[in-house]
Amino acid sequence: MKNISGGVCAPKGFLAHGVHCGIRKNTSKNDLSLIMSEQPCSAAAVYTTNLVKGAPLTVTKAHIADGCAQAVICNSGNANTCNADGIEIAEAMSALTAKELDLKPDDIVVASTGVIGQPLSVEPIAAALPALAAGLNPDGSHEAALGIMTTDTIAKEVAVEFTLSGKACRIGGIAKGSGMIHPNMATMLVFLTTDVAITPAMLQKALSGDIQNTFNMISIDGDTSTNDMVTLLANGMAGNAEITDDNEDFAIFMKAINTVTVGLCRMIAGDGEGATRLLECCVSGAADEATAKTVAKSVICSSLLKAAMFGADANWGRVLCAIGYSGADVDVNKIDVSFQSAKGEILVCKDGAGVDFSEELAKEILLEKEIEILVSLNSGSASATAWGCDLTYDYVKINGDYRT
Amino acid sequence: MKNISGGVCAPKGFLAHGVHCGIRKNTSKNDLSLIMSEQPCSAAAVYTTNLVKGAPLTVTKAHIADGCAQAVICNSGNANTCNADGIEIAEAMSALTAKELDLKPDDIVVASTGVIGQPLSVEPIAAALPALAAGLNPDGSHEAALGIMTTDTIAKEVAVEFTLSGKACRIGGIAKGSGMIHPNMATMLVFLTTDVAITPAMLQKALSGDIQNTFNMISIDGDTSTNDMVTLLANGMAGNAEITDDNEDFAIFMKAINTVTVGLCRMIAGDGEGATRLLECCVSGAADEATAKTVAKSVICSSLLKAAMFGADANWGRVLCAIGYSGADVDVNKIDVSFQSAKGEILVCKDGAGVDFSEELAKEILLEKEIEILVSLNSGSASATAWGCDLTYDYVKINGDYRT
Repeated sequence: MKNISGGVCAPKGFLAHGVHCGIRKNTSKNDLSLIMSEQPCSAAAVYTTNLVKGAPLTVTKAHIADGCAQAVICNSGNANTCNADGIEIAEAMSALTAKELDLKPDDIVVASTGVIGQPLSVEPIAAALPALAAGLNPDGSHEAALGIMTTDTIAKEVAVEFTLSGKACRIGGIAKGSGMIHPNMATMLVFLTTDVAITPAMLQKALSGDIQNTFNMISIDGDTSTNDMVTLLANGMAGNAEITDDNEDFAIFMKAINTVTVGLCRMIAGDGEGATRLLECCVSGAADEATAKTVAKSVICSSLLKAAMFGADANWGRVLCAIGYSGADVDVNKIDVSFQSAKGEILVCKDGAGVDFSEELAKEILLEKEIEILVSLNSGSASATAWGCDLTYDYVKINGDYRT
Repeated sequence: MKNISGGVCAPKGFLAHGVHCGIRKNTSKNDLSLIMSEQPCSAAAVYTTNLVKGAPLTVTKAHIADGCAQAVICNSGNANTCNADGIEIAEAMSALTAKELDLKPDDIVVASTGVIGQPLSVEPIAAALPALAAGLNPDGSHEAALGIMTTDTIAKEVAVEFTLSGKACRIGGIAKGSGMIHPNMATMLVFLTTDVAITPAMLQKALSGDIQNTFNMISIDGDTSTNDMVTLLANGMAGNAEITDDNEDFAIFMKAINTVTVGLCRMIAGDGEGATRLLECCVSGAADEATAKTVAKSVICSSLLKAAMFGADANWGRVLCAIGYSGADVDVNKIDVSFQSAKGEILVCKDGAGVDFSEELAKEILLEKEIEILVSLNSGSASATAWGCDLTYDYVKINGDYRT
């Protein structure tokens, strides 16, 4: 398993491109992205559990009900959510894309991200599609990654290469993160591609299983988006023996997906709105995995702890507090807490009570860009990891006037 | 029912005082408060559901197990939580207070608020108690209210007068709020006093019932404190016929408590850490009360909506989003949303979709200090209200280096 470049275009037969079509006011920012496979694909997806769902999710769900798709169209700047004509617009985006690529509309995955509740005009999309399609190329992942960004500050691309039955295979992905991120059985906007041959059912099983430990374990701000979606297209062009059941190849494939999704998780959390630090809470010694996950997510979601991390303040009482209200059944008198970064590790709480520690070393550790919060429950052998970021002035600034 | 001054000293026979004893570094801030009744009291209390509990809660719970108490001692600046000797210190605070007031230790309610996980020395408290007790006076509520403040910017006192069977009765209260506020079956630090004659059982029933619609409906930051507690002492000195069951007098008493607690709720939410605006989410038309409460709390807790309110941005999509992920079973296509303040009311969403509205008027309405977010679910007749505040730069600043 090795990391490679190329993002969604790393797997064989995938092309991508991104352009500015005019939905966003800033003409220097891409706002429309297209990904296409040269061959038909098995398709899988997971969606937000928010009852308020973007129209594109409804349309995508219908389109890939047959387990097949071949292209993805996604705009930023407008979520096409809570609009009376939302479905109609999402269908029009699909139809226009299909026409341009000579595909069927129900082979198109359609997605939108941005402001909720503002009508989305299909006109700029229609006008831009011919050039967007003409520009599809095997090095287009970065332009596509740029086109799905909202308040993201960096484009998010990951790809890996691995071997299945002697054939070189690849998985790539791009993601849009930043705000309104608190997945619950679903996730933020992520498009994954692979050249592995796999049935739609096994592809869905792989994706649904993976997100439980990856995208479902991120929180930027506790707000579950209306437009969260992860899709995974597999075109089979690597030429491996098609994965049809839960065999050894499937296990390797799962591991490869996990490498890509954890990579994207860390990029999404580290680039959370206004974030200055990536926080990773690693819970060990839990009685069961559910407890470990509940504790890890509660710590990552605490506004007070997030603000303390912004200030590089080793306020471990807030870690204990967040564990205490998490709803998990834990013995608080057995909990140990340490902070860790590239500068070292420091124990701050043992058996649920404070220990003497060097505030100077703690500060030095917490001033790093990537912080691990290590929680030992000392009650079993299960573990879990959750990702988040600090709470900063800029989070407030970004969200104080997002629409204008 | 009329609002009166006097806080916890408004009811007959209650004295209070507050001093600086040295737990807080700033010598101009009170950090130790005492409330005493001239007569023994029926006592009731509710506590945080956080598994990590401050030692004072455990001690108070034991002390009022017999339904009786006569005084309250409370320090700020240190929560006495997650300390190995916490129980010992809380017992010592009680014993010293009891000795000074010539009461039994188990007639003392003890409370602490401040940093978690730092040893609390009883010495400054012991040294200050003689002067604190000597200073007890019938106008001392304000000094006591000052002594329980942490990051609060204003002292919180409310009192009302009402009549039970021809006798003038009073209920008063002081509160400490500001941060780490997200009650769940319990609340922040609130001390209530009354001169009503009522049995301990009915007093507990009144308090436990009231907080479900008041203190349990506030959220500043989603963090449930380790030290939340509300106590209510009733000394019977108003001379009313003792309330022993769920009769008409009990109903009047409940209404009076509610007036005091809603008053304190609004003060706590409006003075949330860094807050510039009080937010009140009023949900109506719900199928049942549980749904109304779930929706109201979810809206009030949304970091994104709170940041939008700071920016006076009518971003109603975030209201819909928060309703959608609340877990409540609602028909999103029936939801109406309006914003209201002293400047007027404006409908921004009808049947789950946006309506044309004047951004100028919306801005004018949202620039006020008290904002109502009106949500109509149009699916029944149940309603609920939740209180919160906006998310601001100052929340981050206050919590970025709270310990130093």
